[in-house]
Amino acid sequence: MDPKAALDFEKGGGLVTAIAQDAESGEILMVAHMNLEAFERTLETGQAVYWSRSRDRLWHKGEESGNVQRVESISIDCDGDAVLLRVEQEGGAACHTGRRSCFFRRIEGDGYRDVGVQVFDPDEVYSK
Amino acid sequence: MDPKAALDFEKGGGLVTAIAQDAESGEILMVAHMNLEAFERTLETGQAVYWSRSRDRLWHKGEESGNVQRVESISIDCDGDAVLLRVEQEGGAACHTGRRSCFFRRIEGDGYRDVGVQVFDPDEVYSK
Repeated sequence: MDPKAALDFEKGGGLVTAIAQDAESGEILMVAHMNLEAFERTLETGQAVYWSRSRDRLWHKGEESGNVQRVESISIDCDGDAVLLRVEQEGGAACHTGRRSCFFRRIEGDGYRDVGVQVFDPDEVYSK
Repeated sequence: MDPKAALDFEKGGGLVTAIAQDAESGEILMVAHMNLEAFERTLETGQAVYWSRSRDRLWHKGEESGNVQRVESISIDCDGDAVLLRVEQEGGAACHTGRRSCFFRRIEGDGYRDVGVQVFDPDEVYSK
């Protein structure tokens, strides 16, 4: 059965949720979204292509930083509105802040703490 | 700093994406959503409370099946539109189909395959 037929883009206004998980460590790297074209491009290229809600365009992850995500497997959830990508993260960091994971703010007590692992300096990686 | 202040509910129309990850194995169990009240209830109770988009109401995960999620930690992503819950899954299964994870359809070749681990029979767990 065609994987696209298992996806429900309607519920999310044309988008499904996409989670990137480090294939080796199991760490959650980031969450983004895909429209149908992003999903197809991901299948075709073997690298994660998302739909950027803030920039309103296709976003080949790593297009600027070089930190692409090589996709090892894709799974679809039970109701078809989310996909899970197990990836090998080039450069070792998924977050635009240079941290390995975007989920670097852990809630502790009444606040939160930065527990992120800094891998690169974003000022050196992204053009101004 | 108040964790709620780090969340951006606007971008997702009042909701943030919530990922539940098995705290021990690292397996992704499911993806759902939270509004502010669901987030607060999760913090207060220590169990995952989501906002059900299909039922349009608060959803205390496990309220019917008994398979609650005990929250060990919560992390917020860099732009505040997603949270990651590391949980202990009561009953060993998060999916309403009785499988351990909702992401049981893995893409292979031109199709996908059910690689899910069946933990319970949904007909026995949910009332008709």
